[in-house]
Amino acid sequence: MILTVTLNAAMDVTYHVSAFRPGESNRVSEVAVRAGGKGVNVARVLHALGHDTLVTGFAGGTELQADLAAAGIRESLVELDGPARRTVTVVTPEEATPLNEPGPRVSISDWARLVGDFHQLAERADVVVLSGSLPPGLPSDAYAQLIRATTTPVVLDAAGPALLDGIPAGPRLVKPNADELAEVAGHDDPLAAARELRARGTGAVVASLGADGLLAVTGDGTWRARPELVRGNPTGAGDACVAALAAGLARGDDWPALLADAVALSAAAVVCPLAGDVDLDTYRRLAPAIEVEELPHADPDR
Amino acid sequence: MILTVTLNAAMDVTYHVSAFRPGESNRVSEVAVRAGGKGVNVARVLHALGHDTLVTGFAGGTELQADLAAAGIRESLVELDGPARRTVTVVTPEEATPLNEPGPRVSISDWARLVGDFHQLAERADVVVLSGSLPPGLPSDAYAQLIRATTTPVVLDAAGPALLDGIPAGPRLVKPNADELAEVAGHDDPLAAARELRARGTGAVVASLGADGLLAVTGDGTWRARPELVRGNPTGAGDACVAALAAGLARGDDWPALLADAVALSAAAVVCPLAGDVDLDTYRRLAPAIEVEELPHADPDR
Repeated sequence: MILTVTLNAAMDVTYHVSAFRPGESNRVSEVAVRAGGKGVNVARVLHALGHDTLVTGFAGGTELQADLAAAGIRESLVELDGPARRTVTVVTPEEATPLNEPGPRVSISDWARLVGDFHQLAERADVVVLSGSLPPGLPSDAYAQLIRATTTPVVLDAAGPALLDGIPAGPRLVKPNADELAEVAGHDDPLAAARELRARGTGAVVASLGADGLLAVTGDGTWRARPELVRGNPTGAGDACVAALAAGLARGDDWPALLADAVALSAAAVVCPLAGDVDLDTYRRLAPAIEVEELPHADPDR
Repeated sequence: MILTVTLNAAMDVTYHVSAFRPGESNRVSEVAVRAGGKGVNVARVLHALGHDTLVTGFAGGTELQADLAAAGIRESLVELDGPARRTVTVVTPEEATPLNEPGPRVSISDWARLVGDFHQLAERADVVVLSGSLPPGLPSDAYAQLIRATTTPVVLDAAGPALLDGIPAGPRLVKPNADELAEVAGHDDPLAAARELRARGTGAVVASLGADGLLAVTGDGTWRARPELVRGNPTGAGDACVAALAAGLARGDDWPALLADAVALSAAAVVCPLAGDVDLDTYRRLAPAIEVEELPHADPDR
């Protein structure tokens, strides 16, 4: 079982408009609503691939719980007072504009309850995925506390202080994107940055670099997996990548196999408009053909 | 009792953002949510003034009902399948951008139920207010059907076909704004347009012309009430104006008193950021001083 944790889960609302005019009244032609947040999206992808998954984290109200039940995805979310956090993304034929609510504040007792639940659930999991931003009220070492609360391998997909403060707790793998990697490193050299990040305490760094593919700095070597360039919406590609990494770790795949799978599943997410969806035909078609190259200048501690 | 009807009621969500960048991710700093729709706003103003009010109309889910109960406003809304319609207004220090969901479709049986309920409720009311747009599924003569279903005087605040098709049913009063008046008349002369509209079957036309104040064309004469120019947010001024007109009709005020009251209450709404709120001190201070002028060229059938 793969456990995904979404501390800042939300109902993701998509507003389709023919044109979007700030300062004027805009008529929404179509509304789509479903449970989201990065860990929820990862669980959707894993569920589509047939993996046994369980969703935990925080959610206001009961909307997310009902939506996940309807999708057949098991959850053990901790309910917060107040309504569910919502994100609204305004989509025109040209662009997408996300509006992200801060979400309800997490109290000390909410957090204590989640950590206790997490400890129980994580011990039954093969891999744990910690994904996304932290809600108001939690310290930047919240992910570190969760990583220390389990012996199960953890994949951490976070940014900024939540990422930096999580790494010393020893996740098996972190997956920053190019911006997140540059931000925590303070410079724009992805290979050097990934090595620096790994030296801080994570087992591996798999950086998703968009058109430059995946760069993996691990204890076994350094690899680059070439991307499959497909047309579509990059939203959700990172979550599909994390889903593939978690599934590969659970299976015990070697790094080249794991990275090829992650590139193919990312591309299978790009061709779908909604984060959390993947096109399984695209995934199966691309996966066998992904090129993974071992880099000559490997990690010093290889 | 004043009955307000909101066929397209909604949960009105306000997103405060420091700056709004279409095409980029926007962090919402503050979220405000409350029951809205023009008739609901009118009821809020009447409730603040101490009038006995009752809200009816359509609402998905139970969110509006709970919010109105918390505000102490009585409601007899007809519940529709699906969640409540929402409007989201993105507010920066410079501008406001509303995004309006279409709302759930009203079925023939929903409509039959509402008309039956309305008939019962309206007979117990002193004045009925019909306000706002029609939801998907209703014909443009929906307001005409309601007006014909009661002998109680009706104030109609609508636009386009819903306004034009409502007038032959004989509302006591319609309250278009300058744009709505020009749209249905097909020209920009407000006095001529108001007279044309009255000739189609409404007892009176009270047009709200922004900086030009209120223009009333009635069976008793033609008046213009000068606006009080106050700084603030004009959203909700029209609903406050309708609340004052309904309250004045219920009391049996003469036109000059009624118009002065409507101008003062509109100004009291402009100084409040949210539609449905009025500043009672501003209202009480301004009301005695509003100038109402009878126009020399009165309505031909005076």
